[in-house]
Amino acid sequence: MSAFDTLMAFERETQALSRVAGRLSWDQETVMPRGAGAQRAEESGAMEAVLHARRTDPRVAEWLAAAQAPDEAGAAQMRLIRRSHDRSVKVPADLATALARLTSRSQGIWAAARAADDFAAFAPTLAEVVRLKREEAAALAGQGDLYDAMIDDYEPGATAAGLAAIFDEMRPRLVALRDRALGADGVDPVRGDFDMEKQLRLSRDLAALFGYDFERGRIDLAVHPFSSGSGEDVRITTRVAEDDPFNCLYSTIHEVGHACYEQGIDAAYSLTPVGQGVSMGVHESQSRIYENQLGRSRAFCHYLYGRMRETFGDIGVDNEDEFYRVVNRMHNGYIRTEADEVQYNLHIMLRFDMERALIAGDLSVADLEAAWNERFKADFGHAVDRPANGVLQDVHWSVGLFGYFPTYSLGNVYAGCLYAALRRDLPELDAQLARGDLSAATGWLRDKVQRQGGLYTPQETISRACGAAPSAGPLLDYLEQKFGVLYS
Amino acid sequence: MSAFDTLMAFERETQALSRVAGRLSWDQETVMPRGAGAQRAEESGAMEAVLHARRTDPRVAEWLAAAQAPDEAGAAQMRLIRRSHDRSVKVPADLATALARLTSRSQGIWAAARAADDFAAFAPTLAEVVRLKREEAAALAGQGDLYDAMIDDYEPGATAAGLAAIFDEMRPRLVALRDRALGADGVDPVRGDFDMEKQLRLSRDLAALFGYDFERGRIDLAVHPFSSGSGEDVRITTRVAEDDPFNCLYSTIHEVGHACYEQGIDAAYSLTPVGQGVSMGVHESQSRIYENQLGRSRAFCHYLYGRMRETFGDIGVDNEDEFYRVVNRMHNGYIRTEADEVQYNLHIMLRFDMERALIAGDLSVADLEAAWNERFKADFGHAVDRPANGVLQDVHWSVGLFGYFPTYSLGNVYAGCLYAALRRDLPELDAQLARGDLSAATGWLRDKVQRQGGLYTPQETISRACGAAPSAGPLLDYLEQKFGVLYS
Repeated sequence: MSAFDTLMAFERETQALSRVAGRLSWDQETVMPRGAGAQRAEESGAMEAVLHARRTDPRVAEWLAAAQAPDEAGAAQMRLIRRSHDRSVKVPADLATALARLTSRSQGIWAAARAADDFAAFAPTLAEVVRLKREEAAALAGQGDLYDAMIDDYEPGATAAGLAAIFDEMRPRLVALRDRALGADGVDPVRGDFDMEKQLRLSRDLAALFGYDFERGRIDLAVHPFSSGSGEDVRITTRVAEDDPFNCLYSTIHEVGHACYEQGIDAAYSLTPVGQGVSMGVHESQSRIYENQLGRSRAFCHYLYGRMRETFGDIGVDNEDEFYRVVNRMHNGYIRTEADEVQYNLHIMLRFDMERALIAGDLSVADLEAAWNERFKADFGHAVDRPANGVLQDVHWSVGLFGYFPTYSLGNVYAGCLYAALRRDLPELDAQLARGDLSAATGWLRDKVQRQGGLYTPQETISRACGAAPSAGPLLDYLEQKFGVLYS
Repeated sequence: MSAFDTLMAFERETQALSRVAGRLSWDQETVMPRGAGAQRAEESGAMEAVLHARRTDPRVAEWLAAAQAPDEAGAAQMRLIRRSHDRSVKVPADLATALARLTSRSQGIWAAARAADDFAAFAPTLAEVVRLKREEAAALAGQGDLYDAMIDDYEPGATAAGLAAIFDEMRPRLVALRDRALGADGVDPVRGDFDMEKQLRLSRDLAALFGYDFERGRIDLAVHPFSSGSGEDVRITTRVAEDDPFNCLYSTIHEVGHACYEQGIDAAYSLTPVGQGVSMGVHESQSRIYENQLGRSRAFCHYLYGRMRETFGDIGVDNEDEFYRVVNRMHNGYIRTEADEVQYNLHIMLRFDMERALIAGDLSVADLEAAWNERFKADFGHAVDRPANGVLQDVHWSVGLFGYFPTYSLGNVYAGCLYAALRRDLPELDAQLARGDLSAATGWLRDKVQRQGGLYTPQETISRACGAAPSAGPLLDYLEQKFGVLYS
């Protein structure tokens, strides 16, 4: 066997083991017995140790040095393997273990602090997470910027400066749009009693409509919706609020976007580094375009309004136009995950600036709550009422996810670019959406984005799909047009 | 760290990984998407490779040589680790791989042959399985007997000669009992339409009644009921036939017996070799005593008859005595898994003799079907009507399980000994069973058998529980007494 083939055979086995570890997490969030937590921690730890040993195996460096990539895909495989290997060997084993131990413990401390609305109960642990994540970033960054090294884990090639430039362009236009919309007449949310089984049945129908392949996946319930796996086994979870059917329906469509990305990757890349979504930003572009640009469009609302009345009878919404306003309702809220398409990005920018300052050492954890509350008031026009609705609302920092938040808005920016290109290519799109036919739109995304997996860099992936480098313009134009009409 | 502590830390991680591999099999049988089979085979293969590398790791032999067991449990741990290590290093890697590949393929060939009622379609594959299993046994046995080496995988310390002596004692008394019973008036099976949800609800109630801890387990549906896992995460599966509620109920109680054994082991042995059921025979003794000696007893039938009428209304059985006869119905059947407590053992003895002859080379695969049919006629008094009801009915041989069948009857023998001892110790047992109170009986089994896990050998485990070496006498006495009354 050539060095390249040996490398790929080893990597394939590593990927297979990594899929097993991923399924262990799925199991934990969906079906694991309540009392199995302690044993499960040992099982997950043992899997992590196996994977770490393989990722840092010195033979990988030798094979990489000796191998010749046979083609473009082979070169991409080697690039991704080198990236993973380099990252793994740079972080000292002791630090990796300490971080894993701390973040598994700190999630529980965060959850308790959030339940008690007590930031001070979480602050010392968060300070320790920040300290260790800075150490890890220093090991990864060499002479470079710590926060850039963190971003690179989730969005290879992106930098804080580049993201800041995009966000600076977005912020004034979003704030203006938000002020205009919240000054107009409000929309009441749908409230009522929506049968759980009916919600789940309709969600499954919508998942199939958006192209989710149930032969290679399944939908279960979990506290927080997520998508998990790749290739032949890509599972999603959803949740049900009996008083708000849109929670379940749009959570499902969002996760279907993630899952269709993984299911759509060329099967030739199965169990290889190229055989997975290329970055968090591109992943989020898929979930967002499924959920928002397609799922919350005026045209699709025609179809969905009919399906909901079929399913639930009178839902207390008089006509399609009102329905369209309801699913795009903008209001003064606190919570990122409940925000509309406009304010969502303001939530992200707040977190981006906070975490950048934390990592740079310009903001201490002790001052974080006050800084958050001040910035929130400035950006959203109303004050945070309690920590659970403010600085304690997200799990991310407790598990060490710094540099992750900006990929959500980057995903929106990518989705804006893709949607503009998709509309150009599919002149019949609105008519298709209005009859619940998503096949052309999801087919376009599969061909232009999903099929490639990790063959190109994230930026290249979007550029090749759209015919131009990604920028915030298309998203902002789309939002101003959509919400301008909605709140005129 | 001492050599012993190092050995145990390594072993603990191996055990954790082995639990992960076991859960992967559970996932495959219960929730895996249909289209994920190919990828799953690679995932399972990768886990198997990791486990094989750990089991054959030369450091294990070094640690074993250097370690001092600190106590009785430590000595048992070392004995079991040595056993596993020796077995793993004796089988050449090429042979292990060839066997894994063949048996994963041959199961499908067997299933197709059974569906087509065509033994010839399976025979060449079975011959190849026999050939490779003989090779493996030769590597394990050294100068010893091949079939004994196979038995040792499932029932350490048992031998074909020892089992044959037990079975020779059992056979005439079982045949006589069978002839007497089948000569008496027959009992009609229950038939009707039994709602699936109600069956599952009642099964869950019975599982809890028999001591299954749902905090550390769960019940799902699968084609073939099984129990899986150990320690904090022991899951069972069941199945439902809408026209026969006893299929689901007694399958569940049977698997609960297996699961309670694993759940009942002292938590101090968690994720160690001692922290698992000690042998297939002892495991089966637990599932059988839960299902038969307790679950099909006259006293428990008083309780269960009431519960079934509560759940399903009129079930077409007029009174408790008739109900007792129905759940212990003996009739001329073909299928091992559907057999009553008496004929079940005749099924096992047939397979024991067939596979012993196959492995010894006294019977060729080409002659197996004829030999099976002839022996069946002699033992059961009626002729096999088609291969699916005869030589093709069990999956075991297709996946290389030779030496496994006799542990089922050994489990019955053990259950007979345990039940006699349990009745001596619990004079109020019948009154307890009649009111659905299983706590004293299952508590006795937990204290006397389950808690110990693999601390003693299988034989010692039973001897210590009963105060005497195991023998077939108690089982035969119990069966003659029970079925003598039922078919008087």
